[in-house]
Amino acid sequence: MARVIVDVMLKPEILDPQGRAVQGALGRLGLAGVTDVRQGKQFTIDVDGVLEGDRLALMERLAGELLSNPVIEDFTMRVEQ
Amino acid sequence: MARVIVDVMLKPEILDPQGRAVQGALGRLGLAGVTDVRQGKQFTIDVDGVLEGDRLALMERLAGELLSNPVIEDFTMRVEQ
Repeated sequence: MARVIVDVMLKPEILDPQGRAVQGALGRLGLAGVTDVRQGKQFTIDVDGVLEGDRLALMERLAGELLSNPVIEDFTMRVEQ
Repeated sequence: MARVIVDVMLKPEILDPQGRAVQGALGRLGLAGVTDVRQGKQFTIDVDGVLEGDRLALMERLAGELLSNPVIEDFTMRVEQ
């Protein structure tokens, strides 16, 4: 079994209102010095067997096309076999 | 500057309809053998200076109370100083 972890985050140049709201809330609740907050998504995907070759390439393609929106988001993917 | 990364995921016993939808889509798009998908949130928080002592303790408390819902979610937090 392999586990794939895909982190999806808005590109740095895209405004992140959710992150901005969290930044404000952290400050109001007493945490000083917060300079930036970004909120993204994380997917944990369990697959049977070893993920390699064509299946790994397809997983990477789908991480970029299904799990994230390439116009506004970046993703990172790591595989734990 | 320190960077805090908080991953928030539904507890294993909580149904994850978004994850289930992604699991179905991955299968329809040709990725065989997907046994489970969970979708969570990831926060990247930049703070001034070194995060330690009371401020680190407050950050950890807020990760559990503001960034996640302790009734249905688990979180992990890591700090890159």
